[in-house]
Parts: sequence; C-alpha cells; structure tokens
Amino acid sequence: MKLLRVGPAGSERPALLDRNGTLRDLSGLVPDIDGELLADASALTRVREAAQTPDVLPPLDANGLRVGPPLGRIGKIVCIGLNYHDHAAETGAAIPDEPILFFKAPDTVVGPEDTVLVPRRSRKTDWEVELAVVIGRTARYLDTAEEGLAHVAGYATSHDVSEREFQIERGGTWDKGKNCETFNPLGPWLVTADEVPDPQALPMRLWVNGELKQDGTTARQIFPVGEVVRYLSHFMTLYPGDVINTGTPAGVAMGRPEPKPYLRAGDVVELEIEGLGRQRQELEDA
Amino acid sequence: MKLLRVGPAGSERPALLDRNGTLRDLSGLVPDIDGELLADASALTRVREAAQTPDVLPPLDANGLRVGPPLGRIGKIVCIGLNYHDHAAETGAAIPDEPILFFKAPDTVVGPEDTVLVPRRSRKTDWEVELAVVIGRTARYLDTAEEGLAHVAGYATSHDVSEREFQIERGGTWDKGKNCETFNPLGPWLVTADEVPDPQALPMRLWVNGELKQDGTTARQIFPVGEVVRYLSHFMTLYPGDVINTGTPAGVAMGRPEPKPYLRAGDVVELEIEGLGRQRQELEDA
Repeated sequence: MKLLRVGPAGSERPALLDRNGTLRDLSGLVPDIDGELLADASALTRVREAAQTPDVLPPLDANGLRVGPPLGRIGKIVCIGLNYHDHAAETGAAIPDEPILFFKAPDTVVGPEDTVLVPRRSRKTDWEVELAVVIGRTARYLDTAEEGLAHVAGYATSHDVSEREFQIERGGTWDKGKNCETFNPLGPWLVTADEVPDPQALPMRLWVNGELKQDGTTARQIFPVGEVVRYLSHFMTLYPGDVINTGTPAGVAMGRPEPKPYLRAGDVVELEIEGLGRQRQELEDA
Repeated sequence: MKLLRVGPAGSERPALLDRNGTLRDLSGLVPDIDGELLADASALTRVREAAQTPDVLPPLDANGLRVGPPLGRIGKIVCIGLNYHDHAAETGAAIPDEPILFFKAPDTVVGPEDTVLVPRRSRKTDWEVELAVVIGRTARYLDTAEEGLAHVAGYATSHDVSEREFQIERGGTWDKGKNCETFNPLGPWLVTADEVPDPQALPMRLWVNGELKQDGTTARQIFPVGEVVRYLSHFMTLYPGDVINTGTPAGVAMGRPEPKPYLRAGDVVELEIEGLGRQRQELEDA
C-alpha cells in the first residue's frame, strides 16, 4: 500500500493512493498514519481490506492538495552516516567498521514539496537523497538482520538536508548541521514493506535545477537495512513510528571540486527512489 | 510553581506541589504539563491563579504514587557537551570555542525514581547530573542571551546517563552512547522560571551508593543558559516543550583513575539540584 497524509501542515488527514492512482480518504477508517497505526494489526488489516476494494473509500481531489509527510507523530529519526561505498570515497572518509549514527529532530520533517529554508549565515547547504525506513514493531537487542527487516513497517523517500559548515567545522557532532528548520522532507508515500521485496535494489536519483547530481542504488549500502535495524537495537530501543535515514550515495555538493555547488535560495531540488515516489523543493532564505 | 506529573508510566496526570508541600491534582484544569500548556498564556494563568489559592485544587495522596517526568510529549532533547570548566579538565578535553551539542531521543525519558537499565554488553555506564532547561516559546535566530533566557519556561533536574564505550569508542558521534532505554531520568518537578531567579547559581550534587561523586554548581558553566538558548536558535528552531540538558560538572566515572567506577546492576544513584528536587534510581540489567 501507498499511505500518505494530505492537507495543511499540522492538520493532515490520512489517505491511500489506490492501485489505479486515485487518492482515497482514510480518515473515516483510521485517525492518522503514525506509529500507533503501524503497531495495530487490526487497524492495519482494516486499511488493507479497504485497499483491496478501494471504491468503498471516498475519493479525494488531488488538485491543489498539499501532500504532507506520510507519517505523523514521529518518535525519533536516527540517521546513518557514510553508509554508501561511493559516498565514503567522495568525502575522503574510510569505510566505517560499524554504522555511524546521528539524529535529526522530528520537527525538521516537512512534506515532499514544501519549501526548504537555507539557514541564515549558511554557506554550505547540501542535498542527500536517502532511503527512509519506518519501524513497525518495538525492536530491542535483535540477533539477526532478518529480525531487523521483520521490524520494518515500510519505506519512504527522504531528503537529509545538511549544512556542512555547521556539521563539520563548528565543533562537536554532526547533529549541529542536520537539524535546521525544514531539513527533512519526507514522502510522498509510506510504502508498506510487502511492496518492497528487496530494499537493497532501489535506484535513487537527485537533481538540482534539472541537473542530475546523485545517481545511486541501495545495492551499494555498506550496512543494509536489516543490519542497520539490528545494530541500532543494541544501542537504543526502536519504537513503531521511529524513522531511520539510511545514508546517501555519492554526488553531494561536498564531494565536488571547488567551488562546490552548495544550495542557495531559488534552487530547485528534485529527488526520487524507485517505487517510493518523487519530491520537489524550492529553496528560500530563512 | 512546581509542576509535576504523577501516576503510571504513559498515563500520568498533571499535578502541582503547593507552597505547603501538598500535592494537588491539576487534571481538572489542564490536560497535561507539556509544550502546549507552556505556550498557552491563558491556561498558564489559570494554573497560576489556582496555585495562589491551592485549596481549590483536590489534594492527592502522595503515598505510593509514582512520580513521572514533569513534561509530556517532549519534542526534542538537545544536550550540551563539556559545558563545565571542571568537567572539561577531568576528561582532558580543551575548553570548547562554542557549544558542543548532541541529542537524546525523548523516549529515553523516565521518572526521577524509575529504574535505570544498564545496557547489555555495557562496561562503561556513567552518571551525569545536569540542569535541564524547558523551552516555553518558539526560538529562532535570537540575538542575545537575555532573549534566550526569556524563552525558558522552567527548569528541572536531569540525569544524562551515558555509556562511554558506546559514546566514544564505537565510531561516529556521541549520540550512540546517550540513547539507551531509560537513559534520561527527569524531574521530579518542572520549576517555573519565575522561581529560579539566577539559573547560574544552582548547586548540584550526585551520589552513588551514598558516596558523593559530583559536587558542582551552574556557576561553572562555560556557556550559561541564556547563551545556550541563543546559540542553539541559530542551528535549529526550539519549540515549546523542547528540553536542553546543559552539561555536567566534574566527578563522572570516566574522569576517575583506573579502575573507573562505572555503574552496574544494584547500584543506587541519587542526584539533586538546589530548588529543583531530588532523584533516586536503582540500576538493573537490561
């Protein structure tokens, strides 16, 4: 299923994109797309049954309707750094022995077509297309990558916007360059795991002002999705509605020769992951 | 005012500790102690007026009543590293030029007397008494430390439990050792800012098994509270209900000679900040 949330920021309603591409209102069936729904087998079954005969659900006019992030009340967003062989190489970093992690606050999440703000005094705002993993079951001290995968409810396209000077040159940890307002466009859809048979075979691309900048695939992840979930579960408890941004492939501005083409107001970023949908953001000054 | 939340984990009710030390039920007046309340001037005024004549509020029997964290629905927890002259010295670190920051997920928060879990395979679980700052107004790009202080709703005692091997020796950022389950006891009270005239003059202490380990004061913070809020507001937006853990003074296990006295199951940690209340946790294996 392709689940999404539509409407004004902060008051989105749950929706389904049915097999014929028609947008259907789910708000009569479930209050929201969130961790509570993902952990509730009977509510999920109701949604699945409706998706089989989508005519029972009221259609929504997609025209002019804002698409929000496909997940509400996100608990935490854990991000994996340097998780692609090609991206580690372009930044001059060694291949990590174990996953590097950092955090984005859930309040950085916006919809897939919402404006992204270039922070004040920013000179190095950069792009990163990423596969987001949405947790569906509480994960503690898992033993295997297979168990890790079994705790995933679904996947989404994620834009891990990053300010490199804040991240790397301002002392301390990467979090400082990852948490500016609007820095995590998510969606358009939460695609349930049953429709993503192999999360390690997803082509992903990102364009800036129409020029292809990132052209990668999750096949080049150093630590695949199931292993990332297993690994994280030994350092923290993952709950339904938590999100993992699993890293970006090569092609970011930081990896280019000088003068590096960092983002500025007026730029347009588009990104997509095959099967998970496409995003488009215009940049404005904060 | 001393605001708190009492009752079983996940279904705490809002309460007030009145001037006579009587616990009063606030649930007839406000649904919870959270960012929404702190940002709502008229709801806060109702609570303040009731606090002036607390007999109007039903008393609660404190006997056997669990005290939860004093703030619900926390948005994010930003933590400042190495923010005390004496702690930077004991760890052999240089005095930072600007605040070092990392994150704890809100799901790490437990009540002030709840059990703290030593993670599996942990050999270096450490303690850190900290002053927690609770944000009351949305803060973006503030100009001065005075403005920073004006965005603070209140203060609480916080225990920034830390696993040093996970934090420092496992690759990547500090977040890896800061987010284990139960790693942020908070409370007992959220003390409103009007009752903390000088947040830079608060003695703070921590004991392990009755032995005094940390004996510091917020007077020794490198970056004081108002400056921390101002600084953070240039890298992220702070919202009502966000929490900042402002760093720990000297005396942690990591700063001791070998063999360093890291925590293990059965240990009891007690901590307090003057005027903000006392915590007590027993450690158990996860």
